[in-house]
Amino acid sequence: MTLELKRPRGRSGGRTTRRALRSVHDITMLPGLNRRLPLCEVMTGTQIEQIDAASMDILETVGVQFRDPIALEDWKRAGARVEGELVFLDRGLVRELIATIPSDFTYHARDPQKNVRLGGPHSIFVPMTGAPYLRDLDDVRRNPTLADLGMFHKLSHMMPALHSSAHHIVEPYDHPISQRHLRITYSSMKHSDKTFMGMTTSPKNAEDVLDMCAILFGAEFMETHPVTTGNCNGNSPLVWDETMLGAMRAFCRRNQPVLCSPFVLGGANTPASVPATVAQLNAEALSALAYTQVIRKGCPAIYGHYLSTVSMKSGAPMAGTPEISLMNFMIGQMARFYGVPWRTSNTLGGAKTFDAQAGYESATTLSAVMHAGANYIWHSAGWNEAGMHCSVAKFVVDAEQCAMAYRMAEGPKWGDFDTALAAVPDVGPGGHYLGHPHTQDNFQTAFFMPELLDNSAIGQWQAEGSTEITERALTYARKLLEAYEEPRLDAGINDALLDYIARREREIPAADALNQEH
Amino acid sequence: MTLELKRPRGRSGGRTTRRALRSVHDITMLPGLNRRLPLCEVMTGTQIEQIDAASMDILETVGVQFRDPIALEDWKRAGARVEGELVFLDRGLVRELIATIPSDFTYHARDPQKNVRLGGPHSIFVPMTGAPYLRDLDDVRRNPTLADLGMFHKLSHMMPALHSSAHHIVEPYDHPISQRHLRITYSSMKHSDKTFMGMTTSPKNAEDVLDMCAILFGAEFMETHPVTTGNCNGNSPLVWDETMLGAMRAFCRRNQPVLCSPFVLGGANTPASVPATVAQLNAEALSALAYTQVIRKGCPAIYGHYLSTVSMKSGAPMAGTPEISLMNFMIGQMARFYGVPWRTSNTLGGAKTFDAQAGYESATTLSAVMHAGANYIWHSAGWNEAGMHCSVAKFVVDAEQCAMAYRMAEGPKWGDFDTALAAVPDVGPGGHYLGHPHTQDNFQTAFFMPELLDNSAIGQWQAEGSTEITERALTYARKLLEAYEEPRLDAGINDALLDYIARREREIPAADALNQEH
Repeated sequence: MTLELKRPRGRSGGRTTRRALRSVHDITMLPGLNRRLPLCEVMTGTQIEQIDAASMDILETVGVQFRDPIALEDWKRAGARVEGELVFLDRGLVRELIATIPSDFTYHARDPQKNVRLGGPHSIFVPMTGAPYLRDLDDVRRNPTLADLGMFHKLSHMMPALHSSAHHIVEPYDHPISQRHLRITYSSMKHSDKTFMGMTTSPKNAEDVLDMCAILFGAEFMETHPVTTGNCNGNSPLVWDETMLGAMRAFCRRNQPVLCSPFVLGGANTPASVPATVAQLNAEALSALAYTQVIRKGCPAIYGHYLSTVSMKSGAPMAGTPEISLMNFMIGQMARFYGVPWRTSNTLGGAKTFDAQAGYESATTLSAVMHAGANYIWHSAGWNEAGMHCSVAKFVVDAEQCAMAYRMAEGPKWGDFDTALAAVPDVGPGGHYLGHPHTQDNFQTAFFMPELLDNSAIGQWQAEGSTEITERALTYARKLLEAYEEPRLDAGINDALLDYIARREREIPAADALNQEH
Repeated sequence: MTLELKRPRGRSGGRTTRRALRSVHDITMLPGLNRRLPLCEVMTGTQIEQIDAASMDILETVGVQFRDPIALEDWKRAGARVEGELVFLDRGLVRELIATIPSDFTYHARDPQKNVRLGGPHSIFVPMTGAPYLRDLDDVRRNPTLADLGMFHKLSHMMPALHSSAHHIVEPYDHPISQRHLRITYSSMKHSDKTFMGMTTSPKNAEDVLDMCAILFGAEFMETHPVTTGNCNGNSPLVWDETMLGAMRAFCRRNQPVLCSPFVLGGANTPASVPATVAQLNAEALSALAYTQVIRKGCPAIYGHYLSTVSMKSGAPMAGTPEISLMNFMIGQMARFYGVPWRTSNTLGGAKTFDAQAGYESATTLSAVMHAGANYIWHSAGWNEAGMHCSVAKFVVDAEQCAMAYRMAEGPKWGDFDTALAAVPDVGPGGHYLGHPHTQDNFQTAFFMPELLDNSAIGQWQAEGSTEITERALTYARKLLEAYEEPRLDAGINDALLDYIARREREIPAADALNQEH
């Protein structure tokens, strides 16, 4: 395989002689996806109403635990019935609250050309985050460092279908847990000018992230423009905890969206039924979505979930199972029913290595989330071993698969239908098209040519070293990294960010626990 | 991973103490799939009509080459304009002819419980065929023997989601090419009582296969019941050859369906445009479908295709690309527009080994053909290296993936929605479901538990030998084969089949060329 790199479009001069920058592979980010594929809607209107009614019944009669005194006070003021930590939400109140969530908004990146729209048919791919291990450039499984995280941020910057550099793709173990969010955020901001995510590992960490965003974008700008996303996991069944709710408040108060993500292990923390699992998950998501509007009316928010079914043998989460696909289809319908953008998880794998299992699981998930019409397509690159490691090889392959799914989701291109058809009588029965002018002009754009899938005949493949995809992908990642150029960051802003980090690192005591989110 | 086997339901006593037959894994065939998933329809009604009009224009003005004197005479009698080998088909004639193709029919297996329906929402999974190499039980790539073919027929018999044992899954190189079809057909018939395919490598070979079917099912029965399928490949652009047309006549005259399959390498033998490729392919398929009705009015027939895009680097066919998915969606719409059951290719891979590439390609293809609503889902197990080899490991994994897709295509199960929901207040916020009676009663049926995807934690996986999926799948295949029991075949029929083969082997001179089909 010959990897060749092309400079991003619209970038000026600089190190034009860079050795690894040879041609062809274009790192220009694809615009935010505008899906044109019909959606896989497995529920009738009546069934959507059945799920809605079941979820509202749960909210009204079973209640949701908000393990957080501030949230309980907020709910009382908002008119909910509160008993201890249990909040009972009337369906009228829920509907009234979620009605003010924008159905569609634009995420702002520090390069405005990389702004992306979210909601309705508009979707983005965001790499995985939260891995306590990586499989590195030599496919060795080990704990990651901040340099490893920087590497993933560089790869995120260079893979065209990724619209975000996310945040802690891998956990940088060489920095104290209590200060880590500062270095993670700086790494996202510095290595890429795409959108990124903000840490929610504690309310204070969230405030630090948002302060850094204010340095980068300006506090006033953030009041009216989403520039980052936080993820808040719920503890299914029906619990939201203080850490997540505190982080949620930090984001919402500054008008920044959070993913309201119940963490579902189907059958373990939900009923053993696909529709009943969706009903519970939906109740959980609604309760958090509603709370975002208690915090700040009109603040953007995203219907989230982390979703798997669990193995009967090990109790471990599984990926790529049929019920996960079905639940994605159904959750998409519910999110659209409420008019709220929604998040899902992509290219999940439970394999321990980047073997065929990882490929099946990832592609099955990717396909399901495309047909489900997810907007915020998280964990779109690198996820394997149920999220326990991020694989460099899988990262670049997943990102290319996202580019292929992107192309599929754009639907067939009819623009040159008539001129293409005119080639048929030219070529005639038994002829061939490769020499025809229409083919020569359109072949490259008509058909996607994956770089990382090898389709050569066995003789050629053997002559090139009989390399399987893991090795080819690692070679590809190395060449990308050789060619990486850091996007320019204003020196004053950079200094201000570093000053902020230095000050906070003096203020925050080091600690060593590990937080993780999905 | 512990593999345990369960005897097929409804089978009587026999070798009950067989060592490998331990429990749990049920080899009972899943009934023919009745899809309930909404289809991915990427074309508007107007666009369907545009494709139809373009195809009909091609048939009327460019024409199709039928390189076969008998077909040319048949077409003249049917009222087509014939110039040399070029047949010009008026759209009125095409529509009139294809109108008599049944939209839906039942395939008969020698075990009537394994009959399957085809057309509309009814789909079946059929393993790959035609591989000149296999990757065997030790993952060694070599030429196959008749014993290897028998092994694949046994595995087809035992994998629940496979509805057919097909025919020459691998080419048995230890038998002369000119006689091979006899042994292949006997192997399909003997090792499984599911439906199977019939060889179309020559008109005479097809007659032999149909004579053997007549021995197995009775000639009279075949007059009104489809019992096998032949595949007839077209040579795109716009050519049908004598071998395929002769085999087609053999099948149609005995009322047995053929797959009318243009062999498309998008951009090489079609225009460099997705919709124009579909228009040409559609014209090709229609011309053959129409000819089946010239041969025998009312004979069942299947809208086929083999479809790939080609690599710019090597000219080799690719698998799992976005345009292949889009074309599948579109072809499904065209077949439904004409009311004809349709065939596609499943779980294709271009990888040389069973690596992650194979997984991505196969799962992407599988997902696309499910959302496309294909009826005859061929090449559903084993295909890798662009069809150059059939992999034992991939065969069993693909077949399990088909079972998972089958489950997805059935849609969500609402039967126990209310009782499942009743568990939510029982368990309450912060509780867990595994101990709840509803969970205990329904966990196994609510969520698919793949045998071949390992989801254990890394420690357990390492303790079990750190095996990747190829090794696990080969172990699984070995255990299946140990537990294999041949379905009973009437001794008189068996003798008659062997007599027929012996006679034909005396009559047919041995030859050594290799025929292949896709």
